[in-house]
Amino acid sequence: MNPKAVRPDPLPGRVPGPGERSWNFGPGPAYLPDEVVREAQEALWRFGETGMGVAEISHRDPLFLELVEGLEARVRRLLALPASHAVLFMAGGARPHFSLVPLNLSKPRRGRTAYALTGYWSRLARSDAAVLVQTEVAAEILEGDPVAIPDPARWNLREPVDYLYYTDNESIDGVEFGSPPVVGGLPLVADMTANLFSRPIPDPDVFDLIFAGAQKNLGITGLAIVMVRKEALAGSLEGWPRYLQYRDWIACRSMVNTPPTFNLYMADLMARWMEKEGGLAVLAARNRKKADLLYAAIDQSGGFYRNRVAPACRSRMNVPFRLADERRTPQFLEAARGAGLVQIAGHHSVGGCRASIYNAMPEAGVRQLCEFMREYQRTAG
Amino acid sequence: MNPKAVRPDPLPGRVPGPGERSWNFGPGPAYLPDEVVREAQEALWRFGETGMGVAEISHRDPLFLELVEGLEARVRRLLALPASHAVLFMAGGARPHFSLVPLNLSKPRRGRTAYALTGYWSRLARSDAAVLVQTEVAAEILEGDPVAIPDPARWNLREPVDYLYYTDNESIDGVEFGSPPVVGGLPLVADMTANLFSRPIPDPDVFDLIFAGAQKNLGITGLAIVMVRKEALAGSLEGWPRYLQYRDWIACRSMVNTPPTFNLYMADLMARWMEKEGGLAVLAARNRKKADLLYAAIDQSGGFYRNRVAPACRSRMNVPFRLADERRTPQFLEAARGAGLVQIAGHHSVGGCRASIYNAMPEAGVRQLCEFMREYQRTAG
Repeated sequence: MNPKAVRPDPLPGRVPGPGERSWNFGPGPAYLPDEVVREAQEALWRFGETGMGVAEISHRDPLFLELVEGLEARVRRLLALPASHAVLFMAGGARPHFSLVPLNLSKPRRGRTAYALTGYWSRLARSDAAVLVQTEVAAEILEGDPVAIPDPARWNLREPVDYLYYTDNESIDGVEFGSPPVVGGLPLVADMTANLFSRPIPDPDVFDLIFAGAQKNLGITGLAIVMVRKEALAGSLEGWPRYLQYRDWIACRSMVNTPPTFNLYMADLMARWMEKEGGLAVLAARNRKKADLLYAAIDQSGGFYRNRVAPACRSRMNVPFRLADERRTPQFLEAARGAGLVQIAGHHSVGGCRASIYNAMPEAGVRQLCEFMREYQRTAG
Repeated sequence: MNPKAVRPDPLPGRVPGPGERSWNFGPGPAYLPDEVVREAQEALWRFGETGMGVAEISHRDPLFLELVEGLEARVRRLLALPASHAVLFMAGGARPHFSLVPLNLSKPRRGRTAYALTGYWSRLARSDAAVLVQTEVAAEILEGDPVAIPDPARWNLREPVDYLYYTDNESIDGVEFGSPPVVGGLPLVADMTANLFSRPIPDPDVFDLIFAGAQKNLGITGLAIVMVRKEALAGSLEGWPRYLQYRDWIACRSMVNTPPTFNLYMADLMARWMEKEGGLAVLAARNRKKADLLYAAIDQSGGFYRNRVAPACRSRMNVPFRLADERRTPQFLEAARGAGLVQIAGHHSVGGCRASIYNAMPEAGVRQLCEFMREYQRTAG
């Protein structure tokens, strides 16, 4: 394994040469640590002493079962997850869980639930859930300038509900909760797709369920992680396909059918990498610093770049910004690409720019982006 | 890309050295062509001139969208699929489609369907479907010695049904249909997980739906392919999660949510490889020859090895066999591993041995297995 990678020259205008990797600010699929990619390259050809590539070994091989058990143990250690909660690894992304959560935690066709609507993903989650259960609106993002999450103490929670659902980090809107909205003792359900593993969870026990797609801090697309309090699962789901039932997934230890083995392998590499880096407190401090650098570059641009989210709820993972002169955006993105800074376009639903800076993005990459932004402003002025 | 691989010595007892790859007879996850693995290794680090690894590039990047379009075009060419059928790529394995097929092609809670039970997978598919629709038994495997598929002309099809479901290749039982059971003009649904792309499909238009997990002839686990006649899809599925509806997947061109990008990339590499090898007629001839070699080694062992499936419905993909003296099985498997022949254990539900010989397994690998089997018999005698 060769953890060293050739980096593009920091000066704007230099296209990375053959074999060089750019600084990748993609929202997911996202940047992977170079050393993780190097290890995966080797394992793809041959996994340990098995004589097989890691994508070619049986999911029932003792070595692979050991890998999945090790992955679960690492996740539990990293998050300090209590034994009351099962850890599931399921094929596919986070979206299926917009439906599986109400199906498994409430009463299909009759249950009552509450949703905090703080951006694109929570609205979509509520819309998917509304097909299955009743969904009260607990809160809505304040759409002023700045945009802000309303104080949870004043959320609307009149109804008895089975859970309060929120999106811990809205990756498109760039809005993140500073801490979980613990309200009236209600069990929480959180979509942590875009910020799981980016910081410790203060008290995992307040959650009935946390889920996340893996393609941000836990590897690549095609895998989701679900952590669920076993006793929170609703009873019988007669008449529903068994593969939609978390209960069955727990019973089969995430092997209801052949799992996405390479995606699990990548998750394990990322979990090992997070432990090696020092765990979530260390990563959280780095992530705080990286986000501070980038928001400072935006705020100190005299309005050339703008982010309209209130500082207290700005995402540390996904930093959306716009150029005051929006006509410049395509040229800005093209120049960034030329400087070896890629995947900075905003989500197709909103446009603009967005830099996603998950665990794998080192401070050096963020500094280079900040320098490029200042340089671009200077030459464009 | 370096397509050359160091092969283990053919003599029994030689463990593959560092960096060598064994002959892998795994049922899925399964063997991949060395040249495909080599190309994937490179792309994992950097995909073309993007400066990003293939697992790190956005699924909405024009280059990636082009890859998925190219994959669909290749699949259509390889199978001569008519325009009436949509091609979907969905995260997860084949099992979810045991539920999605009745949900989307029949009337949930009321529909009538027919199932041919020829082994483990068709029985499981019927059991999953029975939660959702009525499932008549069209036929059952004849459990004599030899085991045989009953003549479709005499299948039990009294009821009007929405489709006739069968499993084209039973990977655990080693039973395969020689040709599709076209009966009374009924629309067919086929699980082709273990033999899709191993031979041409004579007339794809007799199928309302074909599905398959990718991990046999189309790459790695975590992806399924579904080919469905658009006009066969049932109407409204109100009250059901949208991500369970093939209609939505067609509308979103398989991007209802972030797709498993690396798994799609591997499928594309495999589709390119199949085209490069000459297409399905060429591969079918090779597969026929490989299977003939292996069944001959079994049949000519004087009962030392046994396969009890009738020759006309023996699988060309999965060759299960047992040693007459079953107590020898662990030792046989261990000796095979020592000779660089791996993943030959039978499915955990039945034990014994099974050699899976998909497209990627060259004739040389099968010859080496046959030679080993003869050598083992000689020395064990």
